[in-house]
Amino acid sequence: MSNEAVGLLISQSVHDELGERLSALARAAGHVLRLVVAPAEPGRALAADEQAAIRLAYYSRDLLTGGNPAAGRAFFDVFDAAPRAEWLHVGSAGIDNPLYQPTLRRAVRLTTSSGGNALPIAQTVVGAILAQARGFTHWLAAQGERRWRPLTAAQMARDLHEQTAIIVGLGPIGREIGRLLKAVGLTTIGVRRGAAPVPHFDRICRPDVLDELLPACDWLVLACPLTPETRHLLDARRIALLPAHAGVANIGRGELLDEAALAAALHQGRLRSAYLDVFATEPLPAGSPLWNAPHTWLSPHNCGASPGNAARFTEIFLRNFMHWLNGEPFDNDATPAARRADGGTRAT
Amino acid sequence: MSNEAVGLLISQSVHDELGERLSALARAAGHVLRLVVAPAEPGRALAADEQAAIRLAYYSRDLLTGGNPAAGRAFFDVFDAAPRAEWLHVGSAGIDNPLYQPTLRRAVRLTTSSGGNALPIAQTVVGAILAQARGFTHWLAAQGERRWRPLTAAQMARDLHEQTAIIVGLGPIGREIGRLLKAVGLTTIGVRRGAAPVPHFDRICRPDVLDELLPACDWLVLACPLTPETRHLLDARRIALLPAHAGVANIGRGELLDEAALAAALHQGRLRSAYLDVFATEPLPAGSPLWNAPHTWLSPHNCGASPGNAARFTEIFLRNFMHWLNGEPFDNDATPAARRADGGTRAT
Repeated sequence: MSNEAVGLLISQSVHDELGERLSALARAAGHVLRLVVAPAEPGRALAADEQAAIRLAYYSRDLLTGGNPAAGRAFFDVFDAAPRAEWLHVGSAGIDNPLYQPTLRRAVRLTTSSGGNALPIAQTVVGAILAQARGFTHWLAAQGERRWRPLTAAQMARDLHEQTAIIVGLGPIGREIGRLLKAVGLTTIGVRRGAAPVPHFDRICRPDVLDELLPACDWLVLACPLTPETRHLLDARRIALLPAHAGVANIGRGELLDEAALAAALHQGRLRSAYLDVFATEPLPAGSPLWNAPHTWLSPHNCGASPGNAARFTEIFLRNFMHWLNGEPFDNDATPAARRADGGTRAT
Repeated sequence: MSNEAVGLLISQSVHDELGERLSALARAAGHVLRLVVAPAEPGRALAADEQAAIRLAYYSRDLLTGGNPAAGRAFFDVFDAAPRAEWLHVGSAGIDNPLYQPTLRRAVRLTTSSGGNALPIAQTVVGAILAQARGFTHWLAAQGERRWRPLTAAQMARDLHEQTAIIVGLGPIGREIGRLLKAVGLTTIGVRRGAAPVPHFDRICRPDVLDELLPACDWLVLACPLTPETRHLLDARRIALLPAHAGVANIGRGELLDEAALAAALHQGRLRSAYLDVFATEPLPAGSPLWNAPHTWLSPHNCGASPGNAARFTEIFLRNFMHWLNGEPFDNDATPAARRADGGTRAT
């Protein structure tokens, strides 16, 4: 406990919505909180005493997804220059955002909102897998032509309880995808660095055996973080290892796969279908061959959108803020030294 | 047991695939089986002794869905005239087929294949519900225009664990739909005549309270048989009781709902979305306003298509054939006197 004011860097919106509650929580725990609102544009300096007081920061969803990159830049101009910075909480699940990299190189804790939109993301992926497996890419094309065109035997995917899904990355999203697909009846294989069993997964495998698994794969779901090891994890060579009846889903990061190779495989009918939410360049350029790839559904980095997210993200931040106030270990600690070796968090 | 040959009326295809196995099963149970192949076209009479020998009949999937109505007519011309007929097993789950009606009026047992394609049908419905709830009707429209268009707040459905699904009809299909939607996290309400609890359903209600349930409904799923009581169960009045954020799914029979009223509601934006597999007239006429109703997905009475069905249907018939051989009660007995009061079998 200390009577010295603890500076917390936040957005104007978080100040307005949560400011009083945060101050009351701090007071109850014996701290004096000083709310520091980040400037809306880069180049605007804070008063020297404000800048010096900053020890904590919350890079919230309104800054992340508000469509104003300048606000993010301005936030980190201030935070990266705060000499007493000790903790940054971010509203994303991943830590590959370029704005976070200076923090990751400093002696500052970084915690994420991993899990905040895991349920809606998993529901989107499983909805796409079920709908595509059952025949909707065929039926919707026929509907567009007002044609009554039942599936031929060759167009039917085999029974779902005979299908195998390989889910790469077992953070909250990958785990929920596995739980739902297991409930439907698929065989579920999880791929991550650690080999401990995970509920609802029939097998857990390390990444180095992925090549051996691919020929028996019906659905390959990429739900892992983007790291140097996972960049182009699904490349032309691995696409060729997948059977022609396999589908691919990517809700991690666009760079997890080789888009040109995937588009070519889909256009040539060497894969059954695909669902992609993330792309190497976003918005996806109008000329991308993915837009009209056969049996391919795209969403605009939007698969986690749900009205309940805001409350869930706030809850995750508040839980970690309480942990800081009480000197307890953080949830979702992504500081390099603290990261566990299990991989598997989507970076939104 | 008897040494008199028991005539079993079957299709040529069942004769070729199962004939020897059926004869062996009968022999092992002390019966002599006489396989009688139905003529392929009406008007061709059987030999008098063949006709007289028929006591059992299997109206199989190849006849039902083979695209040759004359074969069905020919089958029942023979069976309806068989004086010693005692049991008919049909490859459909429902008994509203006009061809079955003479049997239902005679002292002949009628058993169905209810459950044979329940899993694929339920998976299709749940895939459509998840995909539509999460945003795919919006995303796919944008994809068609190569446009990057994330959902607006107004376009987002609320979190699925805050949604309520009402499932009318609790046969094998309705039960599996409830199980899967419960696994996702929805509140599940089952509607049927009997009030006994059903696993994975939060509430079971009788049809007479349906009107009171509709205003709190997010998904209304019709999975019940078509009967005089269920015809136009979803009419203009009940559509008006549904909230504007509700979706409708029909995998029972087209006549369960008023298509004109539903199409009008969808075109006017008074419902969020719809998934329809069955229609009052099939194939759906090219002029139907359902083809291009907003946020509406159609499939051509095809939602249960799956390669594993044939084996499942055969299994159901064989189980009942063994029951007959051993003098045991049938499964799926749909004879009017034997039908239980729980409603809820899709008629395929």
